[in-house]
Amino acid sequence: MEKAERPIGIFDSGIGGLTVANAVLKALPNEDILYFGDTAHMPYGEKSPDIIIRYSTVITHFLLDKGVKLIIIACNSASSVAYKTVKNLANKRGVTVVNVILPVVDFILHEKYKRVGVIGTNATINSQVFPNKIKQKNSKLQIQTLATPLLAPMIESGFVNGEISKVIIENYLSDEALDDIESLVLACTHYPLIKNEIGNFYKENKRNVDILATNEIVAAYVKNILTREELLNTNQEEKERHFFVSDYTDSFEKTTHLFYKSKVNLQQSNIFE
Amino acid sequence: MEKAERPIGIFDSGIGGLTVANAVLKALPNEDILYFGDTAHMPYGEKSPDIIIRYSTVITHFLLDKGVKLIIIACNSASSVAYKTVKNLANKRGVTVVNVILPVVDFILHEKYKRVGVIGTNATINSQVFPNKIKQKNSKLQIQTLATPLLAPMIESGFVNGEISKVIIENYLSDEALDDIESLVLACTHYPLIKNEIGNFYKENKRNVDILATNEIVAAYVKNILTREELLNTNQEEKERHFFVSDYTDSFEKTTHLFYKSKVNLQQSNIFE
Repeated sequence: MEKAERPIGIFDSGIGGLTVANAVLKALPNEDILYFGDTAHMPYGEKSPDIIIRYSTVITHFLLDKGVKLIIIACNSASSVAYKTVKNLANKRGVTVVNVILPVVDFILHEKYKRVGVIGTNATINSQVFPNKIKQKNSKLQIQTLATPLLAPMIESGFVNGEISKVIIENYLSDEALDDIESLVLACTHYPLIKNEIGNFYKENKRNVDILATNEIVAAYVKNILTREELLNTNQEEKERHFFVSDYTDSFEKTTHLFYKSKVNLQQSNIFE
Repeated sequence: MEKAERPIGIFDSGIGGLTVANAVLKALPNEDILYFGDTAHMPYGEKSPDIIIRYSTVITHFLLDKGVKLIIIACNSASSVAYKTVKNLANKRGVTVVNVILPVVDFILHEKYKRVGVIGTNATINSQVFPNKIKQKNSKLQIQTLATPLLAPMIESGFVNGEISKVIIENYLSDEALDDIESLVLACTHYPLIKNEIGNFYKENKRNVDILATNEIVAAYVKNILTREELLNTNQEEKERHFFVSDYTDSFEKTTHLFYKSKVNLQQSNIFE
């Protein structure tokens, strides 16, 4: 098979990374994807760098063996701590790696914001990965971060546009840590699902804040890379999408509909044994 | 060492089971405990029975090799699916196993309630373990269950007695699934932390509902067993408490203070490698 016709590999600690898969297929409907969700070890958020690197290594070998042409690390925790490891392994096989942090950093620098807010899980915010990466390139840009640990479980529990989500979103976004920002990075795969509700909060408060959904930024970035590397899939045949998980349950399969528009059949693959 | 002086082994998928450890030491301050939290694989809630049984088996061998005199499965998911396996392994070594379900079932039957509510994670509620076990012994008792998946992450995120927890608790407890209950089983290790807030909801609504915290019921049950088996520790020396996890992070250690009154030093033990 020609390299351009090979699938894009995407992995995450669970099924939240399907929002990235979704955005990629919206931007590049002609591509195949091969998704791996490490549901046996999810979530990565609170886990140690050592163990996240170990899991990411096994998954990378799996994706490379399946012949992917590009790998997206659709998980903020793995992007923070395992990017170098994954990149080294993949580059040896001529495969480019994209994480969910650097494309967003590039986007922010390009848009010339002065005060940017970032919300994410405890792990992502405590890692300081966004401030560190941005300060390396523009030390004047002010990055204001806030951990919002209840948002992902809130979304997974189905609370996205009612009283509960409104109270929780208001509580977090009213935090003074996010005062006077011009844009807000949604640094978690789940948050695109409440992009509208977050936008509504700022509208109601008459504040003009750009909401940056990382999945869309990453998808645009991947499109650029594949275009530049002349790796866009031009084959018009109907595509197969493959979704693997390290632990299958009905509950996981049911939850996929939150993150991915079409029906998903999860296949269990015991790559850790 | 005499068997009575050996520690009580307690395990959970994470650190929530420390509420059980806490209640056990309150009821039995003279005991040693040895806690194992499987933080590398937490939470078990959404995982498959096969994988939960596999993890529980490894942990049980670890506890038995450390010489525990009794094992408490302080995790509803593992209690539901891995109790038989753990029991078989432990009984061969003369060690009794207590889970967090059967003592509560016994308590409910003894109290002669007619309509009992049960709240817990998706996994616990979907497993139907409480209705099934209770119906086996009293088919007339009405068990009304409701999955309340946002409560555990809410507690872990530190929302226990403010506006957010109030709205979320009210939303769940107002569900018609819990109408007219006489008692409510808190079937999750985290929920003892919001026992007061749940009690306040019923007070404000002028309803008389007994709140059954499973950690206290399990502790009383263990006290009975040790008394009956003449295994109470009568040694008055200061006791050591050991807390092991399969993946250590500062964040886990910090979170222990939510669930356990004293300072906890977590030790990493790579029993899965």
